[in-house]
Amino acid sequence: MATKLPSQRSLAGTFGVNRSTIISAIDELMADGLLDTKSGSGTFVSNNTWNVLAARKQPDWSNYVRNGLHEPNLQTIQDINLHEADTSMIRLGTGELSPSLLPVTKIEQTLQSTAFDAFSLGYSEPKGDKRLRQSISDHLKEKGVTVSPSSLMIVSGGLQALQLIAVGLLPKGSLILHESPSYLNSVHPFQSAGMHLAGLSKQGRDNIRRQIKRINGKQKASLFYTVPTFNNPTNATWTKEERLDLLSICKNEQIPIIEDDVYRDLWFEHEPPPPLKSFDTDGLVLHIGSMSKTLSPGLRIGWIAGPMPVIERLSDIKMQMDYGSSALSQQLVATWLSNGHYSHHLEWLRRELMARRDFTLALLKQYFEGISKWQTPQGGFYIWVEICKPIVNPTLFKLAIKNHLLINPGYIYEPNNHTHIRLSYSYASEEQLDYGIRTLSKIIRRLI
Amino acid sequence: MATKLPSQRSLAGTFGVNRSTIISAIDELMADGLLDTKSGSGTFVSNNTWNVLAARKQPDWSNYVRNGLHEPNLQTIQDINLHEADTSMIRLGTGELSPSLLPVTKIEQTLQSTAFDAFSLGYSEPKGDKRLRQSISDHLKEKGVTVSPSSLMIVSGGLQALQLIAVGLLPKGSLILHESPSYLNSVHPFQSAGMHLAGLSKQGRDNIRRQIKRINGKQKASLFYTVPTFNNPTNATWTKEERLDLLSICKNEQIPIIEDDVYRDLWFEHEPPPPLKSFDTDGLVLHIGSMSKTLSPGLRIGWIAGPMPVIERLSDIKMQMDYGSSALSQQLVATWLSNGHYSHHLEWLRRELMARRDFTLALLKQYFEGISKWQTPQGGFYIWVEICKPIVNPTLFKLAIKNHLLINPGYIYEPNNHTHIRLSYSYASEEQLDYGIRTLSKIIRRLI
Repeated sequence: MATKLPSQRSLAGTFGVNRSTIISAIDELMADGLLDTKSGSGTFVSNNTWNVLAARKQPDWSNYVRNGLHEPNLQTIQDINLHEADTSMIRLGTGELSPSLLPVTKIEQTLQSTAFDAFSLGYSEPKGDKRLRQSISDHLKEKGVTVSPSSLMIVSGGLQALQLIAVGLLPKGSLILHESPSYLNSVHPFQSAGMHLAGLSKQGRDNIRRQIKRINGKQKASLFYTVPTFNNPTNATWTKEERLDLLSICKNEQIPIIEDDVYRDLWFEHEPPPPLKSFDTDGLVLHIGSMSKTLSPGLRIGWIAGPMPVIERLSDIKMQMDYGSSALSQQLVATWLSNGHYSHHLEWLRRELMARRDFTLALLKQYFEGISKWQTPQGGFYIWVEICKPIVNPTLFKLAIKNHLLINPGYIYEPNNHTHIRLSYSYASEEQLDYGIRTLSKIIRRLI
Repeated sequence: MATKLPSQRSLAGTFGVNRSTIISAIDELMADGLLDTKSGSGTFVSNNTWNVLAARKQPDWSNYVRNGLHEPNLQTIQDINLHEADTSMIRLGTGELSPSLLPVTKIEQTLQSTAFDAFSLGYSEPKGDKRLRQSISDHLKEKGVTVSPSSLMIVSGGLQALQLIAVGLLPKGSLILHESPSYLNSVHPFQSAGMHLAGLSKQGRDNIRRQIKRINGKQKASLFYTVPTFNNPTNATWTKEERLDLLSICKNEQIPIIEDDVYRDLWFEHEPPPPLKSFDTDGLVLHIGSMSKTLSPGLRIGWIAGPMPVIERLSDIKMQMDYGSSALSQQLVATWLSNGHYSHHLEWLRRELMARRDFTLALLKQYFEGISKWQTPQGGFYIWVEICKPIVNPTLFKLAIKNHLLINPGYIYEPNNHTHIRLSYSYASEEQLDYGIRTLSKIIRRLI
């Protein structure tokens, strides 16, 4: 005879867990065929439990999980992604706007008055919605970048742009140059496609020029990747001269540039120098933009601007990857760009972010002076804090988590870096920043 | 002195093209630095035009485009994707709901009353929005599939599910079994990742069993891919016995199954046999579902249900590919699944599709009898029409395009198939179906 399970409420009591946990567990066991429900009369241990267990011959999924082509995220990144869902965590490193900085009500209002064309709710054309591409073209013109809608494609955020470039334009084993520390060490679109990375250190223009020449002399580099404005993670911004210089080196060496410009709109007092793309008369630059850092990451809307044959190749691959980006998100962004909501929102957002920067700098002065150095950010999200001793390692990361603090340690951006932490003033609340930075300084002082 | 260009209107007249074409051309030339605008005084040929042209040293992008890892779409598929944007085309093969079948007004109404939680507009957690996963879990339960929200992940449509499985679970050179003809020949997620495909022909259960055993004896197969319900392109549906038999073979041979079940909800008179996943007590099946074929492709929402370690690996890769799916789309689908809108919409949609099927079958009877054979679809979108002579080749495809007809020829689903056409009754209007099928029959009769 089948054994009946106690009620969910009583099981929850017995094990001292939430009822939702019990429900999940029962669901899993039902999925495995070990429990059974008879409607109205409760949950039973399946009559065939032992048969199920005896006959079980699950495929060796762990083998599949281990052997897939794509590299897993770094363990630290996986931990960050997981713990971000835990609301008891104070997120001191998150590269994301705080929920309080997202214009939720205005987004709702726009959706209330948006009439969706039935055609726009079908499969998208390869490059993405035309109205959106036109409005991005207009938006870029304000930054000095002239690019027609046909040389633009919509992507589901900046990371997908890198993914498409990695699998769309490069043979295996290609060499990608980038600045070190680099965002590219924390994500793996190029590495997973079998490309090699060479990190350059940016210390004056001669230096970069010499490094590029030296490396390119040994193995022809295929691309130069850079975040020239409010860099992730360092928050450094290239001057106009450095930009022109990079363009001229890369032109001479025939190395196309990927300009990852997703933080540009977040300047505080002075607009940063124009994008590399605005000086690009040779079709050398693929320019990446996004709404994730300024409007909402949940929309998943970004773009690539570049020479038309490249855009056409990349959109063909996008059609094979996911058949285009969300129509709802595309329509919303097109509306925000064209009706002025976006620029209004930016004006407000810059003021808010600057206030958060100042608040955070004051906390650093109070709790981190004597043990570290940092620069004053002119825009963007990040403070690249240098600790006086090399104690930024997985131990510190885990100690922080134990204290409910999530930090982005330097070693995810530069493997041997054990002196830096990427702090972000964009996400946590003032109370959280205060408590978090104070607590972090205590942990660090103990380790020093 | 710089030469001034005539007005856009007069250029449009001179070249006999739309003004929008002139604007695009001017944009391109400005992007290349060949034209310049002085505000208020018109467009000029840049003073530095010759410098620009002389100095031009564009990187060899065509080389990049040719050498990328990812396979391009088949030329025929690229042509289809491109021509679909042309509203003068009659789309006889499109695997998509007609705009008139999309519940646009109801979607707008839902968006008008949706309150977006600010947290949901941030970066998503790796597996996707919790409320959506719960509602999909409930939805699957109605089909006999018991899977907890933690064994489910959200993807941006069924194709992305295949992409993630291809790069996430298989070493290069893995062997994928599938039925021939197959959707997998028309898209390349596995081939581009370096996997091999072996097509089986489904003619009775012994046959499939024998084929699997024979192939697996030579090289261990890694996966069996199938669309068991309203197959793309054949519209065939596996019986319950065939499903159980496949499960038992694959269990014995230790070959996990991908069940691509995106057409299931579109049955007409009788519900199809339960999903393979509903019989799967061994964690053998990865089950793929989607809203693209039933609600709207523009939402880009689908899901994978499977063993938890597999789902966790795949969601880690999704985070690296595009950081999750659109929050707007996820919220909308969660609402539609949980408030009953989705099932109501399905009831209406099935009636509409069935009427379209009957209308199309009547046209086939009128125009295609004598030159071809077909089955009566019991659901889904497609009629797999077999022509009596092998004339379904690129010539026919191009002839059809000349006559403003877009068809999906059999050879995109089975390379040597020159006898079949995948007709779809889901997209074109009655007038278009009438004119299109009549015209297509004339073209084919001429070729026979």
